[in-house]
Amino acid sequence: MEIPPGALLKSINSPADLKTLGREQLQTLADELRQYIIDVVSVHGGHFGASLGVVELSVALHYVFNTPYDQLVWDVGHQAYGHKILTGRRESFLSNRKYQGLSGFPKRSESEYDSFGVGHSSTSISAALGMAMAARFKGENRKCVAIIGDGALTAGLAFEGMNHAGVADTDMLIILNDNCMSIDPNVGALREYLTDITTSPAYNKVKDDVWKALGKLPVGANFTREMASKLEHSVKGFINKSSNLFEALKLRYFGPIDGHNITKLVDTLKDLKDIPGPKLLHVLTVKGKGYALAEKDQTVWHAPGLFDKITGEIYKKQYELPQPPKYQDVFGRTIIELAENNKKIFGVTPAMPSGSSLKFMMDQMPDRAFDVGICEQHAVTLSAGMATQGMKVFCNIYSTFMQRGFDQVVHDAAIQKLPVIFCLDRAGLVGEDGPTHHGAYDIAYMRCIPNMIVSSPMNESELRNLMYTAQLDTTDLPFVIRYPRGQGVMPEWETPFREIVIGKGRKLKDGHGIAILSFGHPGNFAAAAIRALRAEGIDPAHYDMRFAKPLDETLLHEVFANYDRILTVEDGTVKGGFGSAILEFMAEHRYSAEVKILGIPDRLVEHGSLKELHKECGFDAAGIAEAVRKMMKDTIKARASHP
Amino acid sequence: MEIPPGALLKSINSPADLKTLGREQLQTLADELRQYIIDVVSVHGGHFGASLGVVELSVALHYVFNTPYDQLVWDVGHQAYGHKILTGRRESFLSNRKYQGLSGFPKRSESEYDSFGVGHSSTSISAALGMAMAARFKGENRKCVAIIGDGALTAGLAFEGMNHAGVADTDMLIILNDNCMSIDPNVGALREYLTDITTSPAYNKVKDDVWKALGKLPVGANFTREMASKLEHSVKGFINKSSNLFEALKLRYFGPIDGHNITKLVDTLKDLKDIPGPKLLHVLTVKGKGYALAEKDQTVWHAPGLFDKITGEIYKKQYELPQPPKYQDVFGRTIIELAENNKKIFGVTPAMPSGSSLKFMMDQMPDRAFDVGICEQHAVTLSAGMATQGMKVFCNIYSTFMQRGFDQVVHDAAIQKLPVIFCLDRAGLVGEDGPTHHGAYDIAYMRCIPNMIVSSPMNESELRNLMYTAQLDTTDLPFVIRYPRGQGVMPEWETPFREIVIGKGRKLKDGHGIAILSFGHPGNFAAAAIRALRAEGIDPAHYDMRFAKPLDETLLHEVFANYDRILTVEDGTVKGGFGSAILEFMAEHRYSAEVKILGIPDRLVEHGSLKELHKECGFDAAGIAEAVRKMMKDTIKARASHP
Repeated sequence: MEIPPGALLKSINSPADLKTLGREQLQTLADELRQYIIDVVSVHGGHFGASLGVVELSVALHYVFNTPYDQLVWDVGHQAYGHKILTGRRESFLSNRKYQGLSGFPKRSESEYDSFGVGHSSTSISAALGMAMAARFKGENRKCVAIIGDGALTAGLAFEGMNHAGVADTDMLIILNDNCMSIDPNVGALREYLTDITTSPAYNKVKDDVWKALGKLPVGANFTREMASKLEHSVKGFINKSSNLFEALKLRYFGPIDGHNITKLVDTLKDLKDIPGPKLLHVLTVKGKGYALAEKDQTVWHAPGLFDKITGEIYKKQYELPQPPKYQDVFGRTIIELAENNKKIFGVTPAMPSGSSLKFMMDQMPDRAFDVGICEQHAVTLSAGMATQGMKVFCNIYSTFMQRGFDQVVHDAAIQKLPVIFCLDRAGLVGEDGPTHHGAYDIAYMRCIPNMIVSSPMNESELRNLMYTAQLDTTDLPFVIRYPRGQGVMPEWETPFREIVIGKGRKLKDGHGIAILSFGHPGNFAAAAIRALRAEGIDPAHYDMRFAKPLDETLLHEVFANYDRILTVEDGTVKGGFGSAILEFMAEHRYSAEVKILGIPDRLVEHGSLKELHKECGFDAAGIAEAVRKMMKDTIKARASHP
Repeated sequence: MEIPPGALLKSINSPADLKTLGREQLQTLADELRQYIIDVVSVHGGHFGASLGVVELSVALHYVFNTPYDQLVWDVGHQAYGHKILTGRRESFLSNRKYQGLSGFPKRSESEYDSFGVGHSSTSISAALGMAMAARFKGENRKCVAIIGDGALTAGLAFEGMNHAGVADTDMLIILNDNCMSIDPNVGALREYLTDITTSPAYNKVKDDVWKALGKLPVGANFTREMASKLEHSVKGFINKSSNLFEALKLRYFGPIDGHNITKLVDTLKDLKDIPGPKLLHVLTVKGKGYALAEKDQTVWHAPGLFDKITGEIYKKQYELPQPPKYQDVFGRTIIELAENNKKIFGVTPAMPSGSSLKFMMDQMPDRAFDVGICEQHAVTLSAGMATQGMKVFCNIYSTFMQRGFDQVVHDAAIQKLPVIFCLDRAGLVGEDGPTHHGAYDIAYMRCIPNMIVSSPMNESELRNLMYTAQLDTTDLPFVIRYPRGQGVMPEWETPFREIVIGKGRKLKDGHGIAILSFGHPGNFAAAAIRALRAEGIDPAHYDMRFAKPLDETLLHEVFANYDRILTVEDGTVKGGFGSAILEFMAEHRYSAEVKILGIPDRLVEHGSLKELHKECGFDAAGIAEAVRKMMKDTIKARASHP
């Protein structure tokens, strides 16, 4: 389906075209850009609210700055659709987030205008500062601008970046895009602070007011010159040194200004472009701006899926039969069931209450479930602190974001043997978000830590049982439960709880000649492969290992005693993951077998649908079946050639 | 050697004893405690300056708070010697940091007074908040106190913790121990800010002054009531909402107070104990307080080694022959040599300029080498930002602290193929600092990332050549060079630079029946083992693989074609590390051999000397020789029993 852009937008094939416009044309362009985003996203999907909120800002930045020589770093790049459309990707934007299409995030290999790949939040200040420092060293007058949301600002990395930017001698500009939201409504003291400085009319003009007032202070009997000077000194102290959190960090603070007033934006950016030193411009925007429903419910419209742009109806697939639930919802419902019976249970998530479905518990038990903002590190150490008091904390973090709490898992949970439960949602390939978001590494980076339990459920019932097991008093070690994005396989998922012995796998079927050892949800792909192979007379055994650590050694001795061809299947990297754990077992116990590891290959897997990516990586049912066939053939060939 | 404590200190076997003292005795106790630390550390070694700086604070905290029911969390625990001595560990303190002795950091398994294990910095606020939230939920009136240094405060994690603490409804107290130092003098805007608020006399009394002045404002012709109200309103805004960075984060700010005035400390802590809500007390201390030399040169006296406490002479071992340099110094000297010839080279380290020896370059090329403070995440992303501008950044981070920049390595360097050079100092076992600091996991957590080059030099010359190779224009991927704490093996280390082909190992010797594949410095242990085995007629081949990724496949085909017993040796975890990479190669290429992996076992290795720990882990020369012997015997036995 063709999606025609507006007349003006149609003429913009690069920022150079944009610069030929008169400033009176900019709002029209912004309107057309907004409409184009609505038109495309409604039928092709993608993130929505964030980009609508920065339409004017995107136009203004490319109008004022000399991109790509000047460098824009869009924090959490899903706000960058406007930027992409304005920088030569208007037509290809139809392929946004599709297999082999445009990435949903800025990406260096995609365009010279994408100065930095940004999928995880809060990297922009550090990255832009690095660019600015390098530019200064090279004697280039390149401007570097980080555009960061208020949600992303809560992450420690952003603070680290500001703390350095304030004392580094560069002209970098930080634009704080303050829409009062991350994916879910923003939390923490910083949010309250931003609201304070935004809503206080006193604040906005305080410098002027104070100085005007001081200039007019009468000097008389009751109010001596000395007192005046003292007062002035005091107030000066405030204004110069600590009038503002950002100024305390030595960033000159400007704003707040209306992020939808394009003339004001252009004027302000032009001024700031010539002001030396590190500075921050506070811009107020509305997430979802220009699409009334999205303005109203920003969480739903963060990434709504396909919708009718006129009525605002979000399309839901209709099924005749009951469908299996999403794993996240099984988590979200199950933790409540468990918490009702175990007063020690807490739920913690860093800014993923909707995505993790912890929000159900937050609604129902607000004193026991928390969103701590985009603070993975804090989420982990906070959970460890709670665990010292005997609490059983389910700390729910997407696998890819858990990378940011890695040190805390090692140092605060594992070394101290604190039984925090890490529920890693979106583990494995995640689909359309692509390589920055694939949860490809967690099996490897968790399995190398002593004291860790690393598990993965093959289905909803297993997830429930692992969660049940993890919260028992007898479980005294940190416990990873990783599960994928999307649906499970059991429409009737509310099975009764059953304890699983830690480190105990299960044999799903016996077989001949070859055994498949699967870890987690891809066990279902393996089962499908086995069904398909039956017709060919190939009969693999199937073991759902459940734990990558500790391994079920009893089961593995059985496997290695009975099968000399072993196929391992996991939704994780083939380097150092579950398959490697099996190899380590084999080496340690001096077995000899042909072992083939299926999983995410050791290269970047780009974005696409889960189905497409599972296929590309060769561990969907067809890929597993093919691997089994090949092993059965090859071994026979190999044996023939080494008599 | 007996080290007698002072008379008063001798009577303190627990905080209960301390509480029986009159407050006029506290300074005497503090003096004795300080002297005892000096006495013990001068002959037994350990961290020095940090604990001296908090002697009064340690006494005051245990005097005022009801420990261990109330919980103290000592950020970066090397400031906690006083705490340890006061909590029943006075005598065992002689074994501090020794094999099987006391840990140099608080450790939960060591004492109920150690509420949280703290080796890495900046965890205390999050941990104490977790404790406080759990306590509140359980209805306990437990006080939770985090004691954090100004250096540790620069880490993002600390900011994340404060941002949450400010809005969480607990009574937690954060004590900011401001000594203007981390290990190396502290950097960043926050440091300047703390200095501002500390040194500005206006600041300290500003609230009082402003209010007093406002109360006396005359109202006359030139200064209307309206103006006064406006001014008052403006100033109020400042005071209530943003008078201070901490208050901006909704933490009530108290101080700064003199951290060596014990009476003031006790009074203030008593007051604060009863003030509800989250709050921060700013305490000014002098690192090394009470030992003049340590006060003067705080970096040298952070952990000086053994010294004569009277003269202040730090003992250096004397050798007749020239000794090999420390790896860190080879790094520190070599980067300057390289940078002199390559203008693209930068050096970045997060708060380890002395430990990494980057300080040499910082002194010589201050515009090209930076300490960014305790900010591993920022250090990595900043380096990646610089790399986008064609810079070759050597980002030097101890292996254990690199854990904190893991996500940034994946997301900002590797996914974007930005050729940042990560020099991981202190990789492998680190000795006396123990399990929180062993760099045990980096091979595993780096190797699982696509696009990474993971290397380790066997000696100084190799380190130089790897550094040389990493900075070449042809090297276009992120490049890890890991090397251990301590000395290399080459007194004549300044060898000419030679490019190493990436992924190319080297065969050190051919052999019979068994091959040793080593990674990095332990190759020297393997060489020693091979020399020892010669007498027994055992003749292993030896390959220094240099790269855990990419593997030298040519060399490995040679190895697997010629040897069916293979021993791998690395100074890293045996789960998912170098040895596992060899197993993966073997499986992929369908070789069959007996492979034994030597390295850091999959459990916590406690502290001790490097020698003791290498032995314990079985990869010193004797351990390697023994492993070879066993493999030679076992295989023969195994073959006999499976005819």
